[in-house]
Amino acid sequence: MLITSLIEKKRDGFEHTREEIEFIIRGLLSGAVENYQMTAWMMAVCCRGMSEREIADLTNAMVHSGDTVDLSDLPGVKVDKHSTGGIGDTTTLVVGPLVAACGGTVAKMSGRGLAHTGGTLDKLESVPGCSVEQPLDRFKEIVRRNGVCVIGQSADLDPADKRMYSLRDVSGTVKSIPLISSSIMSKKIAAGADAIVLDVKTGNGAFMETVDDARALAREMVNIGRNVGRRTVAIITDMNRPLGMAIGNGLEMKEAIEVLKGRVPYTDPLVKVCFTLAGHMLRLSGIVENAADAEPMLKRAIESGEGFKRLRGMLEDMGGDPTYADDPEKLVAVKKLVEVRAERSGFVGAMDAKLVGTAALMLGAGREKVTDRIDPAVGILMKKRYGDRVEAGEAFAVIYANSEEKLAEAENKLREAVTITEAAPEELPLIYDVIE
Amino acid sequence: MLITSLIEKKRDGFEHTREEIEFIIRGLLSGAVENYQMTAWMMAVCCRGMSEREIADLTNAMVHSGDTVDLSDLPGVKVDKHSTGGIGDTTTLVVGPLVAACGGTVAKMSGRGLAHTGGTLDKLESVPGCSVEQPLDRFKEIVRRNGVCVIGQSADLDPADKRMYSLRDVSGTVKSIPLISSSIMSKKIAAGADAIVLDVKTGNGAFMETVDDARALAREMVNIGRNVGRRTVAIITDMNRPLGMAIGNGLEMKEAIEVLKGRVPYTDPLVKVCFTLAGHMLRLSGIVENAADAEPMLKRAIESGEGFKRLRGMLEDMGGDPTYADDPEKLVAVKKLVEVRAERSGFVGAMDAKLVGTAALMLGAGREKVTDRIDPAVGILMKKRYGDRVEAGEAFAVIYANSEEKLAEAENKLREAVTITEAAPEELPLIYDVIE
Repeated sequence: MLITSLIEKKRDGFEHTREEIEFIIRGLLSGAVENYQMTAWMMAVCCRGMSEREIADLTNAMVHSGDTVDLSDLPGVKVDKHSTGGIGDTTTLVVGPLVAACGGTVAKMSGRGLAHTGGTLDKLESVPGCSVEQPLDRFKEIVRRNGVCVIGQSADLDPADKRMYSLRDVSGTVKSIPLISSSIMSKKIAAGADAIVLDVKTGNGAFMETVDDARALAREMVNIGRNVGRRTVAIITDMNRPLGMAIGNGLEMKEAIEVLKGRVPYTDPLVKVCFTLAGHMLRLSGIVENAADAEPMLKRAIESGEGFKRLRGMLEDMGGDPTYADDPEKLVAVKKLVEVRAERSGFVGAMDAKLVGTAALMLGAGREKVTDRIDPAVGILMKKRYGDRVEAGEAFAVIYANSEEKLAEAENKLREAVTITEAAPEELPLIYDVIE
Repeated sequence: MLITSLIEKKRDGFEHTREEIEFIIRGLLSGAVENYQMTAWMMAVCCRGMSEREIADLTNAMVHSGDTVDLSDLPGVKVDKHSTGGIGDTTTLVVGPLVAACGGTVAKMSGRGLAHTGGTLDKLESVPGCSVEQPLDRFKEIVRRNGVCVIGQSADLDPADKRMYSLRDVSGTVKSIPLISSSIMSKKIAAGADAIVLDVKTGNGAFMETVDDARALAREMVNIGRNVGRRTVAIITDMNRPLGMAIGNGLEMKEAIEVLKGRVPYTDPLVKVCFTLAGHMLRLSGIVENAADAEPMLKRAIESGEGFKRLRGMLEDMGGDPTYADDPEKLVAVKKLVEVRAERSGFVGAMDAKLVGTAALMLGAGREKVTDRIDPAVGILMKKRYGDRVEAGEAFAVIYANSEEKLAEAENKLREAVTITEAAPEELPLIYDVIE
């Protein structure tokens, strides 16, 4: 096989065989396929697409490009959950412990990536001492003890994805459903998941801005799951506003703890999305028949304190100081709190979730470059939700900052992100679709 | 400007501004645009195309990526001729001297490239001593003395094209009309041509296999010419058979000499195509009103010996031994002549020009890799043309070889290339279209 002929084949819109896809992925890792050939091929994939079969073959080739994790010695169905990334999205830290408390097994490996605010790994690291690098045996032991553990992916997991992702990022080939779906699913499969619940965000703060795009990506990932024998469901959820009230690593860990301690009403959007995700995780685990059936169990897990106990236990087993879970205010001890007040009375009529994220990034809550250091305590705590009434002079958000640098800029960005309208806005759907 | 944003813009089918195209070409040469970004962008161009304006801007950016040649001190209209590449295509060595003999000025820089048989430069080098590397002043002097000179492009001419071509070759992005047309035209323009006659080949031995593809490429190149102020005409000619009878460097030089000496009938396809090309070159030079008007002049240039004199003078001025022009048999002195005989009687009903080229390549007449050495004397001399009657046992071709290596393989390839049919085949058009 010749790599140039394979690139031309895709350029001309033809379908690759499984062998051809394996040749490309193997060549990428061996060096037989050069970076400038890989980016040309990925661009051809962006422009010409891939069939369902090709995407499944690509995913499989990526899974087998490195180590795969065997979780078969852990009890029950190992259910994973993945979000395509949103602002104020701390669902993993809520649903992991809740599903565990209800009898599920959540042994999850998470990626670091670039985002406006950190990922789950960064949120875990906001607890002093907590290490997301755990040997596989210890990881499994923590899962056995708590029903849940989230650690970082090892370097040997899905190396093809690491190479492809770093090239896509610099070659304008990020936005491709075949490439995105295979990237997400190959990591989940290589990490040993039996069943996968995907939270596909849509809206102004999401990678897939339209519901149609989100649905197309969701369908493709569900197809991959079916083709490789992993039960997969995708929930399309709204990201036209931050999901929770907290944006920032320690702030989001604190918010997750507050949900688990029953201090956040069940009507809160974050809790509603968490219940939906956890319901589907419990369903795929064979613990409930229908996702909606899980709600009473999930409420019990909160009210009994069992969910919180699982999170606290996991953090402690990962080396974290558990007193931060008991007193989460310690997670967000900053030098400076700045209330951002409404200039006029009205309603929170529109929010640009991406701009809220940018404001948090400016404060030091996220990374622009892989080498950037995150400040775990800084971020934004919203005081008003989308649709809430706000009076002139009333604070709609509080900035948690540790330096004056970019503070004024972040405040302006936040003001830009929040539009105060005279009339109450229309309600936004929270969950658009469930695809499986 | 960010290169990734520009790649994404083309990926999504949008039109670049002139500044954006200049940014990309400048970045390629400065190193600001990496190879893996350039190939992704070129693949996006393959898939999404470019507007006429974008192609003209790209061509201009490539022209100005390096030195441009100023031929304004040479008399008259400097007319160039370029072929997209065919088998047995020795037209340049015929039309250059003929146009010069009729009062035109042909100051041509030619590229080396990969082909089944060598390019014009390799054919020139089949004459011992002839050097295609001449300083610009000497080049102009040779043109002044003979009306014609063909030398190699300097390394500083159109460096963007050199970089892009070497990347396209290995990244499956060769077959793109915007990229092909800008590559050809930028070199012609940078080399100082005032007017350009393009011979766009179509058929089984051509890069553009269908007449429609050839026409599309021709139109784009004519558009570029108009947009950058160079009179350009494209002739679409047939390449469903070798154009001449000779395939190989010395053999083709010898065939050109024989045409110029009047030893080849004017009804021969090679001569007909040469007269058409030369006619348009003389028209663009302002020497004749219509291309067809040139025919009597061209015949006179042959019959008077003036055409041959120009070629001989040019070769001698380039350091070549002129006795090879006088006795061209010396060009094709090989160790072994092998007659390839028809297995049955009939007509030459179909020829696969590319396979004939491959057979010549196997004998050492062309290059597979840039570093391959060409044997100037080897090749194939056809004894029968498309449509000719052939008897069983009669030779339809003679192989000129200097080694046994691959000889049998080349003979088989040649047999495969030539189909003997019972009935005479339909006549093939020689010239499909003239586009300007």
